[in-house]
Formats: sequence, C-alpha cells, structure tokens
Amino acid sequence: MTTMTTRTVEYPADGLTMVGHLAIPAGVGRRPAVLLGPEGPGLNDVQRRRADALAELGYVALAFDINGGRWFSDPEEMMAYIMPLLDDTERMRGIGYAALDVLRAEPRTDPDRIAAIGYGTGGAIALELGRDGVDLRAIGTINAVTTGRPGEAANIRCPVWAGVGSEDPIMPPAQREAFAAEMQAAGVDWRLVVYGGAEHAFHHPNVDHAVRPGVSHHPLHAERAWRDVVGLLAECLPVTE
Amino acid sequence: MTTMTTRTVEYPADGLTMVGHLAIPAGVGRRPAVLLGPEGPGLNDVQRRRADALAELGYVALAFDINGGRWFSDPEEMMAYIMPLLDDTERMRGIGYAALDVLRAEPRTDPDRIAAIGYGTGGAIALELGRDGVDLRAIGTINAVTTGRPGEAANIRCPVWAGVGSEDPIMPPAQREAFAAEMQAAGVDWRLVVYGGAEHAFHHPNVDHAVRPGVSHHPLHAERAWRDVVGLLAECLPVTE
Repeated sequence: MTTMTTRTVEYPADGLTMVGHLAIPAGVGRRPAVLLGPEGPGLNDVQRRRADALAELGYVALAFDINGGRWFSDPEEMMAYIMPLLDDTERMRGIGYAALDVLRAEPRTDPDRIAAIGYGTGGAIALELGRDGVDLRAIGTINAVTTGRPGEAANIRCPVWAGVGSEDPIMPPAQREAFAAEMQAAGVDWRLVVYGGAEHAFHHPNVDHAVRPGVSHHPLHAERAWRDVVGLLAECLPVTE
Repeated sequence: MTTMTTRTVEYPADGLTMVGHLAIPAGVGRRPAVLLGPEGPGLNDVQRRRADALAELGYVALAFDINGGRWFSDPEEMMAYIMPLLDDTERMRGIGYAALDVLRAEPRTDPDRIAAIGYGTGGAIALELGRDGVDLRAIGTINAVTTGRPGEAANIRCPVWAGVGSEDPIMPPAQREAFAAEMQAAGVDWRLVVYGGAEHAFHHPNVDHAVRPGVSHHPLHAERAWRDVVGLLAECLPVTE
C-alpha cells in the first residue's frame, strides 16, 4: 500500500486566488505529472479524489481550480460565470499556465513528463494548452470536444483522447465532428470515444447541479471513462519508477 | 507461462466447408469463450494469432471462417463475393450460428459466457447474432458500424463496443451516426471509438489487399484497438479461473 500525500495549494490566476489540490505519490524522486481540470461548477472532492487516485498510481497530480475556490451550485450562476471564460482563449490559457507553473514547481514533478486531463471547462483548458504549444505527453478531455482558433491545433504534439456522452446536449454530433475535423486537419494523433446514452456530466457522481435536462450521472460509463483516462496515461506517460 | 493449444476445425456453413481456428487455454475446466470474426478477404494468420492471444489470456477462442477457407487477395473478387453477403442478413446469421455451434461444442467452453468480436464483415456478423437475440456477454466490432433490420437491435442484451477509423471510406460519419442512432433507440449499452486518421483495415498488419484508396495499416491505433477489445472482454467476460 502506497501512502500518497496531499496538500492544498493557493496561487494567483485570472485575477483570483485559486485553491488547488496537489497529490504526491509515495517514494522519492521525480515522477510523471498530471494536470487535472474540473468542470464548470468548480473544483470539488470528486476531482480531488481523482488526483489522489492518480497519486496512488505514481503520478504527481494537481487538481486545479478555475473559479477562485468557489463551487457554483446554481446552474444559472455557473453558466453566467463560465460562458465568458469559454469564449476567452487567453483567460483559459492563463488559468492553465498558472496551474502548470504550480505543478512544475513541485520538486517531485518531472517537468518533461506532464499530461493534461480535464472535464468540461477543465478539458477545454487542457486543449488550449496544447494549442498554445505546451510540451505535453498527452491531452485527455471528457465532455469537452471544444474547437480552437484556426490553425492552432497544429501546435499539439501529443496524443489527444476525448470522451463524450452521445446525449450531451452541449456537445452534439456536429460539435464532435467539428472537433474531429480540426484534429484531423492539424495532423494530430487523436481518438474520440462516444459513450452511448451518456449525458453531460455523466462522469460526476454527485451532480447536485443537475437541474437541467441533458445532465445526469451514468455510473457505468463514468467507470469506463476513468479506465480510459488511466489507459491514456499508461500509454503516454508510464510510471517507470 | 501458459501453454495454450490450437486446432483447425472444419464445419459446414453457407453451403461451404468453413475452416476455423480454435485456440484453447491451458488448464482444465470451462472458460469464457470468444467468437472472433475476420474481415471480408477471409481468415488468415492475423486473426488466428489474435485467437491464440485470447487463449493465452484464458479464453476459448474461435477465429471463424466466412469464405470456405479462401483468402481473397484480389479486392474486386473479394467485394463481388462479400457485398451480397453483407446484404443478406440470414446468410450472415447462418455463418455466425455455425461458428457459435462449434464454439459451444468445445468442452472447455462455458456456454453461458460467450462474447462475439469481429472485424469488418466478421463484425457485421457479430452484430447480427446480437440482433437475433443470441445470449452474448459482449459484442465488439472494428470497422463494422453496420445497421440492421428495423427494431431488431432491441434484442441485443449485452454491451456493444465499436471501433472505427475516422477516415474509413466504407464507414463514414453518416454511417457512424446511423449506427449510434440505432443502438441508442434500442436502449443498448453502447460505445463508439473513432480512431483519428485511421482508414479501413487499419488494424491489419499485412494489408496485401490495400490497392484501394482509404485502406491502410495504422500500427498505433491497431495496438490501441486490440487493447480496447481486451478491455471489453475484461469488463464483460472476466477470466475468473
């Protein structure tokens, strides 16, 4: 049994004080590292426990914050806050870079072996780091088949894995196809998994913001999506020590 | 190190004598079992070795035949033979049932734990067994997002996993969407993986029939697709002994 450790990290980004959750694997020496981005409502224990699970597997993992420590339980309030962010590439990248700096500053992190995984808004941020040319080993997104500025996807130099619910009203088939076309035109090594019947936030076990149609938890696909994420990391970012 | 064994099995189907390849895991007692269907040109060593690999993992595996022992190296000849088969649901099911009977007759097979995996035409046959109500534990298809007769997908009672190349000219986005819509309308537990940039037969390491545009080998996605197939079996048909 490993004994990973965790700590809360505060850092500035997007004009806010972000409150992230850093999970460090047992042992000594540098390890591959993972940025873990949350969905629009914010960082909560669901993503913190995912970071812990990655640390148990041997990764340094930072569950980063996008909302300055807030969790938006009201979907209207969340959307009002998040939609302008999703429309502002530079703000998204700024939030991503700030988290990346925190992760890179951790002495246990191998700065040459970093992957970015994100859910919803956090996934869009992971993709934007790739489109800005950050040297990542893998990008994984769930419920975030977002497209970027023309031509910038060619800056992505690592495998991209994307998972999305077939019934996600925010990521309909046309959006999936637009994402696929962008990746393919840019020569990216990409994959897209469509989880049949899953809605938006299907991976989230306590969707207390599920007051909208098209948002619900799907336990079976949630488990599969997590296995797929771990498989992506095992392929692109193996823990060798 | 396990020591699986193999044997050639001849059996009648579709008016032909089929020549299948049965791989038996080491040990004694019944084991979960897998039907493994080949692509249109026929059964060759690629699928035989996949059956062997499944036996090494503990499954009884039958790489079944669809062409009476022939391998069509000429694509025109292959298409002329296969297209009428793909248009004839009853013939496809007949070929599948004959293989299923051989697999069930093997004393090491647990007849209550059978999955059907297929590539191209073999995948279409796997789906047709499901649509005809065969009690399978999982259906996996690669390059075969074929649709069936109206309403029959509701007879599928197991998880369906489908993988397809994004650039497969035989399985374009509209066909993927039609397959997804059929599965979703029928209430099937389904997933679809789109392998970016992969063409038809991407999984096949020696595509000697690759004289057509849109057909080529993609080693990276081929490896991922095999891992995905093994993962489907691990989820739905775990080897417990």
